[in-house]
Amino acid sequence: MNIGMTIYILGIITAFEGVFMLVPTATAAVYHEKQLLLFAIMSLVLIAAGGIITRFKPKNKTLFAKDGFLIVALSWLLMSLFGALPFCISGTIPHFVDAMFEAVSGFTTTGASILHTLEGVPKCMLMWRSFMHWIGGMGVLVFIMAILPLSGGQNMYLMKAESPGPSVGKLVPRVRTTAFLLYAIYFVLTVAEFILLLIGGMPVFDAINIAVATAGTGGFSCDPAGMPYSPFCINVITVFMFLFAANFTFYFLLIRRRFKEAFSEEIRLYLGIIAFAIITIFLDIRHLPMFSGAGEALMHGAFTIGSLLSSTGFATVDFDKWPAYSRTLLVMLMFVGACAGSTGGGIKVSRLIILFKNMTNEFRVMMHPRQVKRVKMDGQQVDGEVIRSVHVYLACYIMIYAVSMLVLSLDHLDLTTNFTAVVATLNNIGPGLNMVGPTSNYDVFTTSSKVVLIFDMLAGRLELFPIVLLLAPSTWKK
Amino acid sequence: MNIGMTIYILGIITAFEGVFMLVPTATAAVYHEKQLLLFAIMSLVLIAAGGIITRFKPKNKTLFAKDGFLIVALSWLLMSLFGALPFCISGTIPHFVDAMFEAVSGFTTTGASILHTLEGVPKCMLMWRSFMHWIGGMGVLVFIMAILPLSGGQNMYLMKAESPGPSVGKLVPRVRTTAFLLYAIYFVLTVAEFILLLIGGMPVFDAINIAVATAGTGGFSCDPAGMPYSPFCINVITVFMFLFAANFTFYFLLIRRRFKEAFSEEIRLYLGIIAFAIITIFLDIRHLPMFSGAGEALMHGAFTIGSLLSSTGFATVDFDKWPAYSRTLLVMLMFVGACAGSTGGGIKVSRLIILFKNMTNEFRVMMHPRQVKRVKMDGQQVDGEVIRSVHVYLACYIMIYAVSMLVLSLDHLDLTTNFTAVVATLNNIGPGLNMVGPTSNYDVFTTSSKVVLIFDMLAGRLELFPIVLLLAPSTWKK
Repeated sequence: MNIGMTIYILGIITAFEGVFMLVPTATAAVYHEKQLLLFAIMSLVLIAAGGIITRFKPKNKTLFAKDGFLIVALSWLLMSLFGALPFCISGTIPHFVDAMFEAVSGFTTTGASILHTLEGVPKCMLMWRSFMHWIGGMGVLVFIMAILPLSGGQNMYLMKAESPGPSVGKLVPRVRTTAFLLYAIYFVLTVAEFILLLIGGMPVFDAINIAVATAGTGGFSCDPAGMPYSPFCINVITVFMFLFAANFTFYFLLIRRRFKEAFSEEIRLYLGIIAFAIITIFLDIRHLPMFSGAGEALMHGAFTIGSLLSSTGFATVDFDKWPAYSRTLLVMLMFVGACAGSTGGGIKVSRLIILFKNMTNEFRVMMHPRQVKRVKMDGQQVDGEVIRSVHVYLACYIMIYAVSMLVLSLDHLDLTTNFTAVVATLNNIGPGLNMVGPTSNYDVFTTSSKVVLIFDMLAGRLELFPIVLLLAPSTWKK
Repeated sequence: MNIGMTIYILGIITAFEGVFMLVPTATAAVYHEKQLLLFAIMSLVLIAAGGIITRFKPKNKTLFAKDGFLIVALSWLLMSLFGALPFCISGTIPHFVDAMFEAVSGFTTTGASILHTLEGVPKCMLMWRSFMHWIGGMGVLVFIMAILPLSGGQNMYLMKAESPGPSVGKLVPRVRTTAFLLYAIYFVLTVAEFILLLIGGMPVFDAINIAVATAGTGGFSCDPAGMPYSPFCINVITVFMFLFAANFTFYFLLIRRRFKEAFSEEIRLYLGIIAFAIITIFLDIRHLPMFSGAGEALMHGAFTIGSLLSSTGFATVDFDKWPAYSRTLLVMLMFVGACAGSTGGGIKVSRLIILFKNMTNEFRVMMHPRQVKRVKMDGQQVDGEVIRSVHVYLACYIMIYAVSMLVLSLDHLDLTTNFTAVVATLNNIGPGLNMVGPTSNYDVFTTSSKVVLIFDMLAGRLELFPIVLLLAPSTWKK
């Protein structure tokens, strides 16, 4: 492994995190909060430390697949560690594991919280939590690549390890341009949502928080009352949750006016799932007494579907009180997750397409062993390596799920709580059902369970492999 | 598809089912029950009908993979249909779908029942239920192959489609001899259990019922009180549940004194899982007030683990009242299931080995793309086709799971009930948790849900593919 290059990139990450911390620093300044000094010092220290480390440029810039995985895993661990420090030092979240849980939940855009209430939490801390979502959503290494010329074309491995989905979609031949384009679309969409929320009458602080959290498909709220916003704002958030969970290649192709290509198989299935879920859940919940009428049921139904499918995790109502069909479908949407190449979590729509197509293809081969057909997506043959890796992903996902469930069960909570806590963290959603439902928090778990859930959030965000490989003994063998 | 051969084999199945019905006929005669005439007539009619159909020997005996799958699927449907008729006609289970549920549950060795109580159910009906387990356990086509010379060596496809596990283990080069050996081991083990149960003081009727149900890893009980037997009998059943869920190749190799080979990777992991489960669950439940002491906790712990891992589904205690860890692990054992080449259900231990080995192998390839390694099991390279089919099995399993859950959720029962009802039927176990727990029954579901669960039981027993292919539109296209 290329240790020099690893340290160099970790140095850049450190410096950038210092820069990112200027956002909560500014917030503290605006609201005259006493955490201003803390954020300012931390910001400067990180920038200085990162600056010093990156003075030592490594001679050998070659990165292999292995380096890509490990650098990404280590970057995210380091980022979360530094991100957790302000919570810890300020006393907002005194216990280190809790602070780490909150920071990992932030960067991985999960939005699961151990805080019992947001009452009394300083605005700079709330801003830092939400802004973490924005950084983590599109990926910090992708951000760095968009800005810095890292090395000669081998960044593909970094991007591959950090981007959601079965195979990384390079928009243009050059990685740096791709990274830049992704962030440009990301930024424009975020600003658009922010402006629409302001038009809807949302306070500026809330609008920034909600916009960056939606963009990253995070889910930390910033108001102790949850989501006390106008129906217009709720609907705006719903639409943007769906937008940020779509494959960003979609927007790229729309801009280029390649409309037919833009509506790829993944986008079409994604839209189909959304339509199916909204219609059937609306029919299931339209008469519930918690809604004043069908219109309200439709609004909250669509919001909740958007929130869980996109893995954002905002909640306007306690969907744990909905009938069995809706709750079952919502849990399934949690597993499905967003599109590949979006900021959302979950198994991803395109993985499901590959699994299904490969399954029907194998059935055909079983019935007619002499006919050899290939799996195709959008008219193009899917690489055998991609199919294999999707299947390995699924096996690995189930294994992590099983082990997590077993560890959590030692806390003696009920099975639905444990089951949905793992769904909600491994798919970077946030709330689950029962004791981790939308009106509860993750402080019900013991420290060991929290550590497992931290692992699940990181594994989920980085698509399992980098984090699992970091822990595999064979990785560290010569 | 070879229609002549299909009808011919279905004819044999019909005749054999008539022969099998002589068992409940004899039971009715012994206990002077009024269903004697019904069983006697049905038996004769089936033998006659089957005899007439098989007079027309097909000229073309060639069977392809497709024929194998479809013949097996149709055989099991037909068998269940005829098997359900006595319940229906006698009025024991008046509703047809309910009778079909009970018969499919019998043949697929699930043991899930829609009966609220066994009080008043005639002994011949109880015997027929339990005996179905015995027929279904090792497979009816395997039984026929063991006795009749079907055709020239192409029976492999039939055996492949009916035998549990990722790849069929032919014990000896000739299919017929393999089938005969399997049934010989099966018969000897069943008789051994029967004798031990008699020694333990169990009544003859119960001993026959329990022995054949254990052998098939079924789970229908024959006493209204459940399992009111001596600790000796309980422990005998525990041991035999583990024995019948082991790969039968194990016994074949033991007989041949190939001890080292006998303890294959699958058998070793199977023993490891049993040891791990017994030790940790014992530690979890040893102080529960439902047990008089640690000894009793150990006995019922081991029994329950044997029952669920082997997919038998007998219950001596209400394990739904155990702590979260035990319940979580038990649900996982339900998924794991028995060994390949046993009479048990579930995903199968060898599939998990293949999934895990392939995963670690793919990780190695990711880290070191130039090293190409193959997945090996017991020193032998695992065929790429087998690995692919295991992955397709997993994807198909999850798909069936999701669709089943959605349909069941329309009945408005709780998620744990639905989730474990699907586990318990798809893995051919029997009882689940909550409303389908060991003290309840499946009559809580509506007819549409029961049809789905019937499908799940058949799909689970036949390892998904034959039943799914039966329904796939592409199968019936020219």
